[in-house]
Amino acid sequence: MGPRALAFDVFGTVVDWRSSLIRELEQFGKQHGLQQDWPAFADNWRAGYAPAMDRVRRGDLPWTRIDDLHRMILVGLLDGVVVSDEDIDHLNRAWHRLDPWPDTVRGLTRLKDKFVITPLSNGNVSLLTNMAKRAGLPWDCVISAELFHHYKPDREAYLGCADLLGVRPDELMLVAAHPSDLRAAHDAGLMTGYVDRPLEYGPGGRSHRIDDGEFDVTATDFLNLADQLGA
Amino acid sequence: MGPRALAFDVFGTVVDWRSSLIRELEQFGKQHGLQQDWPAFADNWRAGYAPAMDRVRRGDLPWTRIDDLHRMILVGLLDGVVVSDEDIDHLNRAWHRLDPWPDTVRGLTRLKDKFVITPLSNGNVSLLTNMAKRAGLPWDCVISAELFHHYKPDREAYLGCADLLGVRPDELMLVAAHPSDLRAAHDAGLMTGYVDRPLEYGPGGRSHRIDDGEFDVTATDFLNLADQLGA
Repeated sequence: MGPRALAFDVFGTVVDWRSSLIRELEQFGKQHGLQQDWPAFADNWRAGYAPAMDRVRRGDLPWTRIDDLHRMILVGLLDGVVVSDEDIDHLNRAWHRLDPWPDTVRGLTRLKDKFVITPLSNGNVSLLTNMAKRAGLPWDCVISAELFHHYKPDREAYLGCADLLGVRPDELMLVAAHPSDLRAAHDAGLMTGYVDRPLEYGPGGRSHRIDDGEFDVTATDFLNLADQLGA
Repeated sequence: MGPRALAFDVFGTVVDWRSSLIRELEQFGKQHGLQQDWPAFADNWRAGYAPAMDRVRRGDLPWTRIDDLHRMILVGLLDGVVVSDEDIDHLNRAWHRLDPWPDTVRGLTRLKDKFVITPLSNGNVSLLTNMAKRAGLPWDCVISAELFHHYKPDREAYLGCADLLGVRPDELMLVAAHPSDLRAAHDAGLMTGYVDRPLEYGPGGRSHRIDDGEFDVTATDFLNLADQLGA
């Protein structure tokens, strides 16, 4: 009994956010004559994301799309740097211009032949749509936490995705490189597919520790996932 | 100042619902040994749709996805015919299997090179997703009235679409074969593109009467629309 649809985590699973951000930050630095440790800047930008979502969860902020959370974090990190609002907006939209991992497009194209494929990301709809258009990600539709006003790992995001797709939760597989996301999906009744992305945090990175058989599928990349799912 | 994104009405504008339903109904009739005026049945099925949405608008029904409205209307029309629930479900999903007009896929493919393209339909997300997958509609994302719990022509559907796409209402063009949909979109601040689909209600059908210059663009089909929009 395989899944009918696959929902993909995006940042880190589908796209290599870190290399892409570093590239964009280096361009930004050159244009503005700034010298910084851009890899560390990228890591700090990403690290601000979970605490920012928690502020929304606690009610300190109203529902806020990720574009706006990313911008708040960015403005904080740029403290003291004088650039125009337009330049900040452009840099912030670097998250719309993230590059896929080398196997992503070929893997998704194979999986799309057999399954309905969608992102299920905390990224907002326009971010995911612009990213897919630029990178050629062949989604069947674009589902975001924005549609439920609940970020992952809130249960509402996983169940809302199955509901929109018209499938039961146990007919939907979340594919992600992050065990915490998969565990929450499992708790909501979804199937789970772990894909190893050891380079997410840069060269010399490590695989996550997962228990044997913890997830329905464990794959080395999207091509291997397609092999295992018969696509 | 052209649009940045195009949102397409679907039933009648992108797909030829009538021919497709008649084909499915004839198959259903053959399988079950039923003789009926299937073209009239298709027209009645479609005609039940606006009153069904009005029941939701009036609060007689809670928010209901179109799949479920279509099924309620279908069950009413099948009054007295004995078939299984599974057969009714399969026939009801004929709305997921509607064929595009001959120019649709080529036109959308050209328009996608220049604009973000999405459906904006009262059809639910899974209906639109399954339809796109089968028919090869190259949407950048899938936006449905279901996401706003407001059917078109409620203003919330048009404004919600622009919001999700991250564009201003006046940067979004609704493309539709129905003047009433376009007029509501215009009232919400969107640009408007009328596409003539004289065969929507079958052979011998007529074009809608529209005033000169009433819409930003008036096109004979999607290829002509692409020509006029420089795509």
